[in-house]
Amino acid sequence: MPLAQLFRVEDLRNYIIRFFTRLNVTEEHARIAADVLISADLRGVSSHGIIRLHSYYGSRILKGLIDPASPYQIVRETPTTLLVDGGNGLGMVVGYHTMQRVIQKAGENGVALASVRNSNHYGIAGYYAMMALPHDMIGISFTNAQPLVAPTYGRTRILGTNPIAVAAPALHERPYVLDMATSIVPIGKITVYDKAGEKIPEGWGIDQNGQVTTDPKAVLQGGALLPLGGTDIMRGYKGYGLALWVDIFSGVLSGAATGPFVGSVGKDQPANVGHFFAAIRIDAFRDPQEFKADLDRLIQTLKNAPKAEGQERIYIHGEKEFELEALNRQRGIPLLVEVVKGLREAGEQVGVPFDLEVLGETTGEEE
Amino acid sequence: MPLAQLFRVEDLRNYIIRFFTRLNVTEEHARIAADVLISADLRGVSSHGIIRLHSYYGSRILKGLIDPASPYQIVRETPTTLLVDGGNGLGMVVGYHTMQRVIQKAGENGVALASVRNSNHYGIAGYYAMMALPHDMIGISFTNAQPLVAPTYGRTRILGTNPIAVAAPALHERPYVLDMATSIVPIGKITVYDKAGEKIPEGWGIDQNGQVTTDPKAVLQGGALLPLGGTDIMRGYKGYGLALWVDIFSGVLSGAATGPFVGSVGKDQPANVGHFFAAIRIDAFRDPQEFKADLDRLIQTLKNAPKAEGQERIYIHGEKEFELEALNRQRGIPLLVEVVKGLREAGEQVGVPFDLEVLGETTGEEE
Repeated sequence: MPLAQLFRVEDLRNYIIRFFTRLNVTEEHARIAADVLISADLRGVSSHGIIRLHSYYGSRILKGLIDPASPYQIVRETPTTLLVDGGNGLGMVVGYHTMQRVIQKAGENGVALASVRNSNHYGIAGYYAMMALPHDMIGISFTNAQPLVAPTYGRTRILGTNPIAVAAPALHERPYVLDMATSIVPIGKITVYDKAGEKIPEGWGIDQNGQVTTDPKAVLQGGALLPLGGTDIMRGYKGYGLALWVDIFSGVLSGAATGPFVGSVGKDQPANVGHFFAAIRIDAFRDPQEFKADLDRLIQTLKNAPKAEGQERIYIHGEKEFELEALNRQRGIPLLVEVVKGLREAGEQVGVPFDLEVLGETTGEEE
Repeated sequence: MPLAQLFRVEDLRNYIIRFFTRLNVTEEHARIAADVLISADLRGVSSHGIIRLHSYYGSRILKGLIDPASPYQIVRETPTTLLVDGGNGLGMVVGYHTMQRVIQKAGENGVALASVRNSNHYGIAGYYAMMALPHDMIGISFTNAQPLVAPTYGRTRILGTNPIAVAAPALHERPYVLDMATSIVPIGKITVYDKAGEKIPEGWGIDQNGQVTTDPKAVLQGGALLPLGGTDIMRGYKGYGLALWVDIFSGVLSGAATGPFVGSVGKDQPANVGHFFAAIRIDAFRDPQEFKADLDRLIQTLKNAPKAEGQERIYIHGEKEFELEALNRQRGIPLLVEVVKGLREAGEQVGVPFDLEVLGETTGEEE
């Protein structure tokens, strides 16, 4: 297991704020972006956290591929809908502000939706869905993303890992927070197997001929990820259909790039990512307390159900992440030593040295 | 291959209407129910078509488990939302009327949602989502269903195959119509393998101990279906999460039964099924012509993408079903001889003989 170092949550948050403000991001916007990234690290979704600070955001701001000073604009608005142009700014900033407004509009009209174009990678989809929870609302967020996934019977990367996030509040139980890529695994998981010299499970990805392969290199070099479900016999066309749904709501509805035309973070072109947000007032349907009590009962029914042989626990979506967040708030956030090395290098380049106090060490990254 | 007989679409439709009116369903309601069932048979989803006329509907009306005369009621209404009590009537009737009203409300306010309780099996989810298409709207429908699917790490049937349907209009291309169970396969597919004496693919289902099995009998007798994705390594918890989402929107939001408490069609108890419907006006975001032209481009990009070795075509969701519908309108709807036998028996029992003209024969059921 690779070694990780532990850092104070607030130290990491302040570092991200200093990093972004150094790149001419306003402090308000830097705080928002930091909160989204830190939330990913807290919840154990480290692939969408501070590890991306330079590769997804800093380096692209420096190259002029993201314009953090450009204002996002509401292009069209009705009492229940918003079409937003992200102005090629930070996805986290337009995402946060749009979801805030969606929640406000849902408060006034029961439900509100927004579709956003001309944006960039916005971190974890679940962050925005969860913003609805304190308002006794259900939150939803989708985003399209750079092409990595082949459609069923295809062999090239046409769709993103286009995640779906849905959050609903419970009473005594933790909220239900679904936050899932519509591919089986993210591309980073294939890289991990490749670095470890291990084969990937059959069905995660295909080679350049469209054949299922267990060789991570064949997926990384000319191959593609498979959608949730995997091969045809396991109904991978359903995962492909979900990815397409996300692209229609995020890209087609907003006029953003879609499919293979969404810009990759590693390419020197604007990304024109599209997002989708929704909020639903529970009390438009039922007393929120009754809703939450009923969701508690459903959650408890699932958790108390008989376990498969060899299993001790049935999880609800978001539960592991809430537990990890509690642990990380206490002990600090673990960052792999190679991630720390990358942050130090990026910090030197940007002029914001990464010199935070190391609280301790762990044997690795939890997930 | 089992032999099927071909019947005129209008003959089957009229038969269903006569069958339902004989059971004291009003003619208006019988016409709606017939249209939903015929739509399933036309689109090749024969598992949700006329084959269920007696088992899901007729026999339950006769036993008093479905009350087709009881009115459904709007329990709570805002300009954008509806909470509906189905009055334990036919799911197709309350589904159709609710989606009609959702479309009307979306026309007035940009978007509208409905959650329905105290309903019954409503046929194919895609029917209701597709109702939005002629209005230049996006349609969505979910429903919960009798428990058949185990949660990840569980071993008993807790969730339904809870389908997700989403329909969006294109310009020259056919609309995108996702209509997918959130399990890998329906239980009927396991039965087909069992009858044929064949093993099922590894991952479709588990035995009574929660272990993956290739024995269809082990799934049917005390086992369970697995959610989309299948086992943990293939990320079956995502399919489990989608099924839970559907249950929250259909069951918890409406106050219907949820999880294992949804009544099974084979059990002598009211089902208290929950549904969810949504319609979104495209012109609240963009000129619908621009939306449709962009969706055309995305569809064409997918269809023209390089194919996997051995494959000739990449499909869009709903495409196969539209092609089958065109074929079936021309040649008639194929019903397996054993299905025809079942219809004859049910017809005798209800007093509406199934004596339709047979147009011809085919070698089997397309899917």
